[in-house]
Amino acid sequence: MDTRDRTTPTPSSDRRDFLVGMTALAGAAGLFAASEQAAAGDPSFMNNVPDPLLAEDSLPEFSFGLEKSQGRVQGGSYGKEATVKQLPISKGIAGVSMRLEPGVMRELHWHATAAEWAYVVTGRVRTTVVDPQGRTGIDDFGPGDIWYFPRGHGHMLQCLGNEPCHFILVFDNGYFSEFGTFSLTDWLGHVPPALLAKNLGVPAATFQGFPKEEVYFAKGPVPPEPSAPPLAGVNPPPLSHKHALHSQEPLETFKGGREWRAEAKDFPISATMTGVILEMDPGALRELHWHPNADEWQYLLAGTIRATLFGSRGRYREATLNAGDVGYIPQGYGHSLENIGSEPARILIVFNSGVYETVDVSQWLAGQPADVLAVNFGQPAATFEAFPKRDVFITKD
Amino acid sequence: MDTRDRTTPTPSSDRRDFLVGMTALAGAAGLFAASEQAAAGDPSFMNNVPDPLLAEDSLPEFSFGLEKSQGRVQGGSYGKEATVKQLPISKGIAGVSMRLEPGVMRELHWHATAAEWAYVVTGRVRTTVVDPQGRTGIDDFGPGDIWYFPRGHGHMLQCLGNEPCHFILVFDNGYFSEFGTFSLTDWLGHVPPALLAKNLGVPAATFQGFPKEEVYFAKGPVPPEPSAPPLAGVNPPPLSHKHALHSQEPLETFKGGREWRAEAKDFPISATMTGVILEMDPGALRELHWHPNADEWQYLLAGTIRATLFGSRGRYREATLNAGDVGYIPQGYGHSLENIGSEPARILIVFNSGVYETVDVSQWLAGQPADVLAVNFGQPAATFEAFPKRDVFITKD
Amino acid sequence: MDTRDRTTPTPSSDRRDFLVGMTALAGAAGLFAASEQAAAGDPSFMNNVPDPLLAEDSLPEFSFGLEKSQGRVQGGSYGKEATVKQLPISKGIAGVSMRLEPGVMRELHWHATAAEWAYVVTGRVRTTVVDPQGRTGIDDFGPGDIWYFPRGHGHMLQCLGNEPCHFILVFDNGYFSEFGTFSLTDWLGHVPPALLAKNLGVPAATFQGFPKEEVYFAKGPVPPEPSAPPLAGVNPPPLSHKHALHSQEPLETFKGGREWRAEAKDFPISATMTGVILEMDPGALRELHWHPNADEWQYLLAGTIRATLFGSRGRYREATLNAGDVGYIPQGYGHSLENIGSEPARILIVFNSGVYETVDVSQWLAGQPADVLAVNFGQPAATFEAFPKRDVFITKD
Repeated sequence: MDTRDRTTPTPSSDRRDFLVGMTALAGAAGLFAASEQAAAGDPSFMNNVPDPLLAEDSLPEFSFGLEKSQGRVQGGSYGKEATVKQLPISKGIAGVSMRLEPGVMRELHWHATAAEWAYVVTGRVRTTVVDPQGRTGIDDFGPGDIWYFPRGHGHMLQCLGNEPCHFILVFDNGYFSEFGTFSLTDWLGHVPPALLAKNLGVPAATFQGFPKEEVYFAKGPVPPEPSAPPLAGVNPPPLSHKHALHSQEPLETFKGGREWRAEAKDFPISATMTGVILEMDPGALRELHWHPNADEWQYLLAGTIRATLFGSRGRYREATLNAGDVGYIPQGYGHSLENIGSEPARILIVFNSGVYETVDVSQWLAGQPADVLAVNFGQPAATFEAFPKRDVFITKD
Repeated sequence: MDTRDRTTPTPSSDRRDFLVGMTALAGAAGLFAASEQAAAGDPSFMNNVPDPLLAEDSLPEFSFGLEKSQGRVQGGSYGKEATVKQLPISKGIAGVSMRLEPGVMRELHWHATAAEWAYVVTGRVRTTVVDPQGRTGIDDFGPGDIWYFPRGHGHMLQCLGNEPCHFILVFDNGYFSEFGTFSLTDWLGHVPPALLAKNLGVPAATFQGFPKEEVYFAKGPVPPEPSAPPLAGVNPPPLSHKHALHSQEPLETFKGGREWRAEAKDFPISATMTGVILEMDPGALRELHWHPNADEWQYLLAGTIRATLFGSRGRYREATLNAGDVGYIPQGYGHSLENIGSEPARILIVFNSGVYETVDVSQWLAGQPADVLAVNFGQPAATFEAFPKRDVFITKD
Repeated sequence: MDTRDRTTPTPSSDRRDFLVGMTALAGAAGLFAASEQAAAGDPSFMNNVPDPLLAEDSLPEFSFGLEKSQGRVQGGSYGKEATVKQLPISKGIAGVSMRLEPGVMRELHWHATAAEWAYVVTGRVRTTVVDPQGRTGIDDFGPGDIWYFPRGHGHMLQCLGNEPCHFILVFDNGYFSEFGTFSLTDWLGHVPPALLAKNLGVPAATFQGFPKEEVYFAKGPVPPEPSAPPLAGVNPPPLSHKHALHSQEPLETFKGGREWRAEAKDFPISATMTGVILEMDPGALRELHWHPNADEWQYLLAGTIRATLFGSRGRYREATLNAGDVGYIPQGYGHSLENIGSEPARILIVFNSGVYETVDVSQWLAGQPADVLAVNFGQPAATFEAFPKRDVFITKD
């Protein structure tokens, strides 16, 4: 058996940063706490094994200034990441804020370790995505639209028209990173041209001018509209990758706010994720609640909110999020969101489950007989007669 | 982004004990064995990655004197735990023995990391449990009844009548602990009263006398019977949380013993757990067998038994369990239970799967042609003509 | 509680080798990388947490000379293993090459940690397998036949006729090892004879001549044909454990090659694994592709192939496999297989999913409009008119 390694050396600083971070954590939390790190927060664990970050005497940071971070910049296009590297609590979900200038394409690539969910903030985007049956979906997206690509399905993202576009990508794995993202030019640039020639039935010289390293952002003319057909002709998959989340009527309207929501039952291909847009007027509160079945990832589209987090054993923490900041709530943790600014707040929220579940504190209390609450809180039963008789969800004074 | 930490400092001795335990284990088993610890026995792993405890040259302890342990005591009420901290082999299942005095309530709380299964030993218990659709189930339980609450569903447990009650709680996660258990007073006691007031539409002064720290066991008058309705009115969930396990006819009767069993098909809400009561006369043997699909957790209700455990590679161990002791059998491990006392033995057994599966050695042997057994054991084929022709399950001389 | 340990001391060299290997890895890759090792590559993780082996700057070895290894030899019978110990990248799947001489039986045993899939290369084999409902399947296999035994189901393997047999066993867990394999003689040899006597209703003296240690390979006369009935009579399970994979027509025929395939839809009991036989003429290429949903394990039955592996971030590696060598491709990694010898190549390929999924590069490219490829590769759109318009799968010049 003869084995050759044709690896192109690549900068390892990212990886080293990660290991250094792990080591620092180990110093703070004890060796074995650190050694459990990788396993602990994984969603396949359903949080069975305690994340040592969540077994400390105080709660860790649960927000990150995503838009203030550096990211990967190429001219006016960029990608900025929030993964376990930037926000260690976010084991179950990662996110990327991406802006593309007109004519720019995030090249053909796939993610070995995560499904991709996205929300378009501004501008227009075209995607192509292939499924394991060889069918290609081509869709054009505008503000308020969402997409979902199952784990490992190859795709590209392309700015449409003469204005830049901005969208938020969300992945059902906090360990999402460049180690699990495979770009087509990176692959074909390392395969011997003779193999490519045999594979595709063309002369090896065809590949002479092809890129030898990963292109990542490719620049070309503004794409044609409508899209030209695929080389192989039109053969779309049965389930749509596109859903108009925010351009429809809100699911529900409350005193002080509105919510739009897309579960797997609404958007069937999105089997592993649920997306929500929450709009809250100044002073409005998304009440105290928890999600029994999913982690929660937040991106503040507009406004200023205060998030509270309760972690059992007296552990309580608050964070203020401004537009462009990210927040994270582990499965089962108590939390609330309150608009503390003077403008409406708009929040993108994504869960790593295709089924939405919440237990709201008002509804939990309303489900108790008065004597139970009286004993639990050591108060007269009459106190609880003034409490809400139904779910509050969003409210304001 | 401005982040404040309002954490209440809490004693960290439990956590330190845990880390010390992990460190001690590391010394005994080698650093990397220990570092695999957290991941190894998790049920979501289906035991794929070997637990280093189970990769030693001899088998670890597989029993624990639960009722002899200290636990959390408040007057005549207590909770005593068997988790990975007390019984390191028990990665897949944890248990708690809880006693409540008349008028005492284990306050409103939820478990972020485990579903809860329970068996009432003595006395009577009321529970309320909310589901993510906001429906509340209220049920009263007596001896031999069981309940099941899915992971993350809020609930309370309350002693009914003038006698104390005693029940065994079983969780489908050996890492269950106070870090994953969230109590309502602990939460509301740390949230600013202004937020509570807005949330519940009442004056902030309402919360002046509310507890500031976790109540855990709340004491009040003996609850009304039947229960008063919830504040919001009656709106029960479609699946019952209650099943009368032991007050029904036994599933099967054998020579020397009887078994009662509740799988998910019998008790549909119990999707992740199966419960069994096994009664054995003096001298009776639950034969050599293994469970291909689940870990097993045992609590001895009465009597004295000898448990045997076979772990491959010549590893064999025995333990004697008396009333109040806990035993644990990892998925796929060979074992038997024998009543070695002079009184009937009664064993509560819980599996972390909603489907019951067993392979009994008598049935495995009876499924072989005589020539296969003759070659396997190097004995004349006639030897096996005296062997049982059907499943033995329980037997005695 | 009184606990006795009757463990038979066994050589621990295998375990020590494993720990030494883990320690060596730690030195190379950093302490915390090593500590993530166990968790990282487990299939229940769906590769969520990055395997530190796969987060290095170059790709690790992905092939192993299985037939050249020593294994466990007893006369002319042997078993040779490829697990994470021999091939650290192979976290998701392990394999064993086993040869049995006429009259030799791999004794009654079960695997606590893996399902077993097998392909018969030469000779004939009989198996018996029990299910948790107590039903026994008895099947005879010839070259090209496959079997599947679910995790934890007890079984034996026996050479039929006067010629030796050779088969390849594949397990859906790279951590498969002797710690999870339980042999019947090992068990019964350690249980007190009085317990065996009570269990089986025969005198304790019956067991005097039984083996005291694990037999592993038992030797007897050539088995009767057809098989004698089980002691308990015939009671087969509803789903067959046997499928004639290679003796049927190939699923598809391509220019230069053919493929046979058995997914769960073809062989229903094989819920967790898919098997493939790939035949390629000299010079033929199984094109660049990846599997979004499964790891891949390869065993070269005949010929010489070159495998390529692409791991993102410029990491590319090749390996040459000869007959008897094993290869491994992690889920989502780009790869190809090319017959570089002068004889036909025949490859056994097994996936740890019952559903087969592939994305082939020719089909991915054919699904794009020409303008997308032009921008992505910085080439004129006309370049791509010569590319294939459909899936290539296998091809040759």
